[in-house]
Amino acid sequence: MSVLVVGSTALDSIKTPKSENPRLLGGSASHAAVAASFFSPVKLVGVVGDDFPSRYIQLYRRHGIDLEGLQRMPGKTFHWSGEYEVNMNNRRTLLTELGVFETFTPTLPKSYQQSEFVLLANIAPALQHHVLNQARRPKFVVADTMDLWLNIALPELLKLLRRLDGFVLNDSEAHQLTKEDNVFAAIRKIHKLGPRYVIIKKGSHGSILSSPKGLFICPAYPLSKVIDPTGAGDSFVGGMMGYLATARGSIDANIRRAMVYGSVVASFCCEGFGLMRTTRTKRSEIEKRVKELEKLTRF
Amino acid sequence: MSVLVVGSTALDSIKTPKSENPRLLGGSASHAAVAASFFSPVKLVGVVGDDFPSRYIQLYRRHGIDLEGLQRMPGKTFHWSGEYEVNMNNRRTLLTELGVFETFTPTLPKSYQQSEFVLLANIAPALQHHVLNQARRPKFVVADTMDLWLNIALPELLKLLRRLDGFVLNDSEAHQLTKEDNVFAAIRKIHKLGPRYVIIKKGSHGSILSSPKGLFICPAYPLSKVIDPTGAGDSFVGGMMGYLATARGSIDANIRRAMVYGSVVASFCCEGFGLMRTTRTKRSEIEKRVKELEKLTRF
Repeated sequence: MSVLVVGSTALDSIKTPKSENPRLLGGSASHAAVAASFFSPVKLVGVVGDDFPSRYIQLYRRHGIDLEGLQRMPGKTFHWSGEYEVNMNNRRTLLTELGVFETFTPTLPKSYQQSEFVLLANIAPALQHHVLNQARRPKFVVADTMDLWLNIALPELLKLLRRLDGFVLNDSEAHQLTKEDNVFAAIRKIHKLGPRYVIIKKGSHGSILSSPKGLFICPAYPLSKVIDPTGAGDSFVGGMMGYLATARGSIDANIRRAMVYGSVVASFCCEGFGLMRTTRTKRSEIEKRVKELEKLTRF
Repeated sequence: MSVLVVGSTALDSIKTPKSENPRLLGGSASHAAVAASFFSPVKLVGVVGDDFPSRYIQLYRRHGIDLEGLQRMPGKTFHWSGEYEVNMNNRRTLLTELGVFETFTPTLPKSYQQSEFVLLANIAPALQHHVLNQARRPKFVVADTMDLWLNIALPELLKLLRRLDGFVLNDSEAHQLTKEDNVFAAIRKIHKLGPRYVIIKKGSHGSILSSPKGLFICPAYPLSKVIDPTGAGDSFVGGMMGYLATARGSIDANIRRAMVYGSVVASFCCEGFGLMRTTRTKRSEIEKRVKELEKLTRF
C-alpha cells in the first residue's frame, strides 16, 4: 500500500554554532516522504519554484517517490532559514520566504485519489482539508501540525481534528491546545476533539501514543551527538505511516512498532544536516537500531 | 539483605496552588527508607529534634524500619518549606531551618556496619563520606545528590564519586556537573569520574541507566494528576535499592527491574502530599503497576 504525503517542500538554510548550510532540501513533506519511502511507495503532493535544484528531484526519485503531484511553478521555492543554539534544543527562525507556496493549492492527480494511507504533514490546516476533500477512500488519515497554526488557524485546525484518525503534535503544542500542563490530561482532551489516535512527540524523551488499545511509551533512540534536529518530527511520522501502510494486520496490531520505526528514522535524520544522513540510510541500519531499542527497553 | 539508608529526616511544609500542608514527614532518607521497605529490611541513619512527632516514628516502625541509627537530639527537626507552581514542575524554597541537622554526625550502630547495600541519599557529601568510612563490607554503594552540593561542595562530591558503585542525579544536575547538554555525552563523562552505574532521573520522562551491560531506558509510570512530586526521586532510588538488596543474582541481572520498581514507588509518592500516599501503598498495587509498565513499553 502506498502513502500519500502532503506538506511543505522547501529549501532550508540552517545555521548552528559550528556551521552554515544554505539551501538544503527540507520541508515537512520532503522529510516525511523520504522517511516513509524506506517502507512503502510514496506519492508526494507539494510545490516547488523554478529555482528548485534538479539534484533534489533526483533525490526524491532515488527514493522511488511518485512526483506526479509535485507542482513546479514559476517563482521561488519556499525558503526557511533558522538558527540553533549550542544545546540544539532552541531554534529561532531568521527568515521565511513563502515564494510559490503562497498561492499553493494541493491538487491530487487521479492516481493519488485512491490512497488509503494519508499523511497530512505540517502545512496550513486549510490545505490539509483541501487534500482530504479529494481523497476518495482514505482508510487511515494522520495529521501533524505546528504552533503557528494553533496561533493563526485554530478554527480550521479544530475542524480538521474531527476528520482525522490520528493527530501528531509535540508536548508544548499539546499544552498550548488544551491548556493542560499534564500530558496525559492533555491527551484526554485531544481525544474529545476527534482523533482516536493521539501521538505526543517529546524529542529526545521519545513519544507517547494514546489509542483505543491504551497507552504506549515509545523510546527515542539514544544519540550522543545531534547534528541537526530539523525534520526529525516529520521523519518520525513519515516513517510511522510508511511502516503502517505495508504492515499486515490491523492498525492497532502494528502502530507501536510503526512508531519505533519512525523514531529510528528520526534518529538518523538528527545525525546530519537536512536530509543528508537520512538519504544515505540503509534498511539494515534501521533494523539494527530497532533491535537495539528492543534491548534498551526490556526489563 | 537489608539496605542502609542515610540522608535527611525532615519536616516539610509544602504549598501548592490549591493547598498548604505544614510539617509533613519528609527528607531524602524518609522517602528512600519507606520506598525500600516494600522490598527489604531497612536500617535508617538520621537525626530528628525533640519536636519530631511520635506519629512519624510510628510510621517508620509500621514499615519495619530499624531506627537504632536515628538520633534524637535536643532542638528542632530540620524544616524545609517550599512552594510549587501550577504546573508542579517548578518549585521554590521558601524556608530552610537546619535545626539539629546543623551539627549532625551520622554514626553507624554496630549492627549497621556490616550492611552490604548502602544508599547515601541526598545529604552533604562530607556526611556521605563519613557513613561510608564506617561501613565494613559494602557490596553496592549508591549515592544521590542535589544541585546545592554541586554548587557548594563539589570537591567532596568528586572525591565521593570515586568511592561509589552507582551515582544517581537528575538531568539538569548532570548538565551542571559535566557542562554537556547531551545527556549521553554527560553520562560518559560521569563514568570517568568513578561510578560504573550512572542513573539519570528525568522526572515524568523516566530515567536512563548506563552500566557495564549498556544502556537501559526506564519508563515513568503515566500519571494524569500529580499532587506533590516532593521525594519522588528519593522514592525512586530507595525502591531500586530495596529491590536490589533482596533480588537473587547479580546487580546487572536485576538493576533494570529494580529501576522499574523504583519508578513505580515514585509514582505513588507523587499521588499524595509527603509520604501520605506512599505509606498506604500495598505491595500488590506496586506489582500491578510494574505489570502495566511492561505492557505500556512492549512493541
